[in-house]
Amino acid sequence: MDLELNEEQQAFRDAAREFAQARMAPFAAQWDAEHHFPRDVIAAGGELGFCGLYANPDIGGLGVSRLSAAMVFEELAAACPSTAAYFTIHNMATWMLGQWGTAEVKAEWGEALTSGRKLGSYCLTEPGSGSDAASLKTRAVREGDGYLISGSKAFISGGGHSDLLVVMARTGQDGPKGISAFAVPADAPGITYGRQEEKMGWHSQPTCGITFENVRVPLASRLGEEGEGFVVAMKGLDGGRINIASCSLGGAQAALDQARRYLGERRQFGKALAEFQALQFRVADMATNLVASRQMVHSAAAKLDAGSADASAWCAMAKRFATDTCFALVDDALQLHGGYGYTREFPLERLLRDLRVHRILEGTNEVMRLIVSRRLLGSDRELR
Amino acid sequence: MDLELNEEQQAFRDAAREFAQARMAPFAAQWDAEHHFPRDVIAAGGELGFCGLYANPDIGGLGVSRLSAAMVFEELAAACPSTAAYFTIHNMATWMLGQWGTAEVKAEWGEALTSGRKLGSYCLTEPGSGSDAASLKTRAVREGDGYLISGSKAFISGGGHSDLLVVMARTGQDGPKGISAFAVPADAPGITYGRQEEKMGWHSQPTCGITFENVRVPLASRLGEEGEGFVVAMKGLDGGRINIASCSLGGAQAALDQARRYLGERRQFGKALAEFQALQFRVADMATNLVASRQMVHSAAAKLDAGSADASAWCAMAKRFATDTCFALVDDALQLHGGYGYTREFPLERLLRDLRVHRILEGTNEVMRLIVSRRLLGSDRELR
Amino acid sequence: MDLELNEEQQAFRDAAREFAQARMAPFAAQWDAEHHFPRDVIAAGGELGFCGLYANPDIGGLGVSRLSAAMVFEELAAACPSTAAYFTIHNMATWMLGQWGTAEVKAEWGEALTSGRKLGSYCLTEPGSGSDAASLKTRAVREGDGYLISGSKAFISGGGHSDLLVVMARTGQDGPKGISAFAVPADAPGITYGRQEEKMGWHSQPTCGITFENVRVPLASRLGEEGEGFVVAMKGLDGGRINIASCSLGGAQAALDQARRYLGERRQFGKALAEFQALQFRVADMATNLVASRQMVHSAAAKLDAGSADASAWCAMAKRFATDTCFALVDDALQLHGGYGYTREFPLERLLRDLRVHRILEGTNEVMRLIVSRRLLGSDRELR
Amino acid sequence: MDLELNEEQQAFRDAAREFAQARMAPFAAQWDAEHHFPRDVIAAGGELGFCGLYANPDIGGLGVSRLSAAMVFEELAAACPSTAAYFTIHNMATWMLGQWGTAEVKAEWGEALTSGRKLGSYCLTEPGSGSDAASLKTRAVREGDGYLISGSKAFISGGGHSDLLVVMARTGQDGPKGISAFAVPADAPGITYGRQEEKMGWHSQPTCGITFENVRVPLASRLGEEGEGFVVAMKGLDGGRINIASCSLGGAQAALDQARRYLGERRQFGKALAEFQALQFRVADMATNLVASRQMVHSAAAKLDAGSADASAWCAMAKRFATDTCFALVDDALQLHGGYGYTREFPLERLLRDLRVHRILEGTNEVMRLIVSRRLLGSDRELR
Repeated sequence: MDLELNEEQQAFRDAAREFAQARMAPFAAQWDAEHHFPRDVIAAGGELGFCGLYANPDIGGLGVSRLSAAMVFEELAAACPSTAAYFTIHNMATWMLGQWGTAEVKAEWGEALTSGRKLGSYCLTEPGSGSDAASLKTRAVREGDGYLISGSKAFISGGGHSDLLVVMARTGQDGPKGISAFAVPADAPGITYGRQEEKMGWHSQPTCGITFENVRVPLASRLGEEGEGFVVAMKGLDGGRINIASCSLGGAQAALDQARRYLGERRQFGKALAEFQALQFRVADMATNLVASRQMVHSAAAKLDAGSADASAWCAMAKRFATDTCFALVDDALQLHGGYGYTREFPLERLLRDLRVHRILEGTNEVMRLIVSRRLLGSDRELR
Repeated sequence: MDLELNEEQQAFRDAAREFAQARMAPFAAQWDAEHHFPRDVIAAGGELGFCGLYANPDIGGLGVSRLSAAMVFEELAAACPSTAAYFTIHNMATWMLGQWGTAEVKAEWGEALTSGRKLGSYCLTEPGSGSDAASLKTRAVREGDGYLISGSKAFISGGGHSDLLVVMARTGQDGPKGISAFAVPADAPGITYGRQEEKMGWHSQPTCGITFENVRVPLASRLGEEGEGFVVAMKGLDGGRINIASCSLGGAQAALDQARRYLGERRQFGKALAEFQALQFRVADMATNLVASRQMVHSAAAKLDAGSADASAWCAMAKRFATDTCFALVDDALQLHGGYGYTREFPLERLLRDLRVHRILEGTNEVMRLIVSRRLLGSDRELR
Repeated sequence: MDLELNEEQQAFRDAAREFAQARMAPFAAQWDAEHHFPRDVIAAGGELGFCGLYANPDIGGLGVSRLSAAMVFEELAAACPSTAAYFTIHNMATWMLGQWGTAEVKAEWGEALTSGRKLGSYCLTEPGSGSDAASLKTRAVREGDGYLISGSKAFISGGGHSDLLVVMARTGQDGPKGISAFAVPADAPGITYGRQEEKMGWHSQPTCGITFENVRVPLASRLGEEGEGFVVAMKGLDGGRINIASCSLGGAQAALDQARRYLGERRQFGKALAEFQALQFRVADMATNLVASRQMVHSAAAKLDAGSADASAWCAMAKRFATDTCFALVDDALQLHGGYGYTREFPLERLLRDLRVHRILEGTNEVMRLIVSRRLLGSDRELR
Repeated sequence: MDLELNEEQQAFRDAAREFAQARMAPFAAQWDAEHHFPRDVIAAGGELGFCGLYANPDIGGLGVSRLSAAMVFEELAAACPSTAAYFTIHNMATWMLGQWGTAEVKAEWGEALTSGRKLGSYCLTEPGSGSDAASLKTRAVREGDGYLISGSKAFISGGGHSDLLVVMARTGQDGPKGISAFAVPADAPGITYGRQEEKMGWHSQPTCGITFENVRVPLASRLGEEGEGFVVAMKGLDGGRINIASCSLGGAQAALDQARRYLGERRQFGKALAEFQALQFRVADMATNLVASRQMVHSAAAKLDAGSADASAWCAMAKRFATDTCFALVDDALQLHGGYGYTREFPLERLLRDLRVHRILEGTNEVMRLIVSRRLLGSDRELR
């Protein structure tokens, strides 16, 4: 057991921090206020490898460990959780392409995605199937040398601004075994984009519903076998959960750092807030909880890297724990700032709005509990 | 002991509910999105008495109990917490005028305020004195037959849109005993308004800083005696805390009602969400916590109505408990809606943003704990 | 709405406090250590009416409200939760006899029970049916002019030391509608008592399993109609839940009072613990939570007194909230005493052990959530 | 970063598990009931090295890492937290002797302690100085070629049954810098033992106060330099905190395993408890929290092993987090067993009583927060 970062990990973290603090942090509040999707900054991150961190090298990915990727995402999120979260979604879609794509698809899209020149979206959720993803209704019907895809997807990050859609659609029976995955160009005929969702936060990334009407894709666009789509989707999400949890870590670390500064500077009743014991205790708990969250995320990443049989349960535990805990931390940090925390003078209210959705997406924290309990109660297996 | 509402209370509650559902609820989302201060709707509420609920009848107030007023505020907040909260602040300022104003001031402003034709703001907080209100630095210097007021106030609700400012300023020594209260016309020469604060929520009410530069007011504008201002401010806040806690109740009730509806309608895995035991348990706890919160608020109001010696501690307990608990309830309700809860399709994300500040203002919940502990540990007195 | 106690309630509370502090508090630790059932003290309480508080006057009960009874139980529990809890169980069984007993049974047992000369036990739970009470297997088979009762009961308070057993047994179909209630003399032939349960706390009251083997009882021993037993049992439990929650209030109040004293006396780092802000905040929350708990219990009692249609849900909310919250309070109070809190020098560790079971019995707090959610989600009805 | 156990760690864990399950688990309930100190079993553990796990090899210690020791303690605690905790205290005292003892003292006591033939106690706390350890009043006055020690110690684990006392006494000025550490034979003239403390749990280890009256010890009995005692004490406690937190892990793991079994077996309402979603969710959270706790403990151990500058803060975070979280887990596990959980038929109530004190000793969890906040707020240093 060794908890220290190795050199590669440190190097990635440092590079990500530098990039995030220079290119994202100074603009995050503005992106939030103006609902601006920083396409150019994402591309700049792509030049550093941040658009294909754990994607296979054969499509231009860095192929680093999930653990290293998690550290990068945390650093990006410390500057802007919303933009960092889009990075993670793009990485997830890109990894899926690299993992299951045909040579043709990889040749056409691989390097474009890993470099950040083109962006990807992940299309699983539908208006009627959120937590119950396996009941999705979008259909891909085999016709000639391709498929015709029809149906509706909801809450698609990057929707309307991305270039490639990784779409889960039903090619067979009901349930998870009838689903296949497809790489679909975002501008394919028959695709229409709904209006942008008005969200609480995550304003620097666009989100919308997408309708597919007889969208024709070639056979080669299928990722994996027919019927393998749900497995593809879930494997993608294992990593996606670590990624989104890492974004919560970053947001929470930024909030904690801000709170430490503020407590040192702000004076009331003749002394610095840092001298009030009740606030000291609260900061101690905040820091402790953040450390615990980070360890959960990193250990889940390590399990995924190691291909452990219980990796999904570890990813679920980490996502549940870290996203809940980090949100609570940001809420505490906001409180420590009093009225100022409620305003945009400080990043706290934005961090709170951005982190709120992490408890919901990539599988709600309720679904995470289902996954964990299934592992615990359905067998003699331990989680330790 | 009798926990039922009497007829007067029921009548007020029903009238408030009807008004709130008709005139506020349908527009609350829009007011939030457009940062619109619904001046006309507040005036319409004034016609029903909602602008001077517990103000003395001699200035046109209804003179109802704090308990009745709390029920009205809860109903208004179920439609729009932000607007309801402004109603409460106006009521607090108006009550202070009725309680401590000179005949002159009451004649000039009383009926205008209780009717809602004119609006009031409460000016206590300063950039450097939030929780430590007694250290405020704004000065009122006696000159001739009046005072010259100079200094800065922060986070003033209604600021820039209200007509009368109730201003706490130092006329004497340091500390709470050197403070006096004044009724200052909002358009008096020497007053300048800062830019509107950009807040997380509470968008239907304007908030800004105010600067006073040698603002001249006559002697008759003083509320109470010289040096009595801090007492005036704190008595106002006792009621203010009940009021703002009532606004949390309303927001939480709206969120709970919405969640009950949604759980009954939304289906996943082949059944209504309402059939999932883990969600049932959560809703049970939400409802229980809301009932507990309401009882805390109502009992504190009853204590204040009865003039109990420990009323301030009860108001502090109620404010702390209800605002924290109701925020958590709204957060839970949002979670139960999954991705939809994060969007403006449902009121939950707005309720969460609006209720967040209740834990901070009218005395942070940390200050509430100080007040309660001082009562508990500084004496042999119980709180029961 | 009126939250003050009336004179009767105050008088009862004062009498109960005096009795409890004189006859119970000084001995509670010893009863706990020696597992002593203070039969004589219970009888002395009976002389003050505490053994038939809300039982009908026609059997010698005082017939006071549930609210008054709750206040008495709280005071008894402030001295010894375990003994107070036995008082509540005896009161519940006695009330059932007065409410549903035939003239014969009431004549034979009524005054003996209300006076405390004889003691009652409530026999619902079975080894295989705890939360799922309606599945109980004990049978009462009609034979001649009576019934033969056979089966096993578990966790019977007073078992082996009480005189009358109120027994739920199946006379008909499966499920709740096949159950009838019986008053069975504790020394009837065919009854055998298991060994005393070794419990974490509640040492001043005996608890054991009871086996019935063809125990013959006359027709007149039936409480209510055939098939009405489950309704009888549940109505008894509505009150039982208020009672046990009141015992949690008493234990928590004793713990809070002890903590306040200790914080004032104990010094560390050169000052009284009461001067440490983090501890002040904790005590403030403890007191606030206790007040909230008491209001929940009292309002549920008032609902039950008023015969409200939703009284069961209110009792469930109160029981869940108060027993969880008061346990947490005692746990906090113990912590504030450091190592001393872990020893029998202070009552805290005993209070914690005694209150732990309140979250389980009279329906687990999980069952309480079921009851509340059924009311909330199964209808349009509110709980407010 | 590598989270897997190496072979040595696995081997230790397996050996400890085997020993604990064979020699401790079957008897733990009885030791608890009879307040039996299993001297012989501790000695048997000593033969496996468990009495000098991280003590230096030059006194017969195994010299393994804190991490390996933590795993051993967890396994012992899964069988009996109380006995395991005594093992940890003995290890702490033994390590201090090996680290700071003179050659003479090491020769006389080292191998006796590491082998478990003789037992050690750690004497820091005094009746008036718990959290404020640096204010201790026991004095060691230089006289001739030795010291005379006088004063009182409180809550000494092993007191009256151990052979060597590691005693902190004041040799100089007030405050931490005036304290020295001594190795004092438990049977030295002038030492008297108070009556055994009656505790809530930890019944398999004796605890008492100790009075020193002019107890003469030679110069060579001093551990470290004059004035170095507080540093010695605190360094011992860094490890002690990891150890006691490990005991919480073991107790919690045992409770979780028991709960998983029970949920699979116990049926209510026609299905296994494991099929109720609300209980599934709770078990998921329990498991997640336990994993988080274990990682906190292991990472703190790794920091201590690595000699990190912030190791004390990590130990404090781990102790605070794990002992609170694991206690809550055991409380949940007890609840899942309903009435049975409250009895000695299952280990849960004993685990709860045993784990309760972990939140208090080796520095209360309040002191842990002070340590963490001092690190966080007193500097620019992060904890990550």
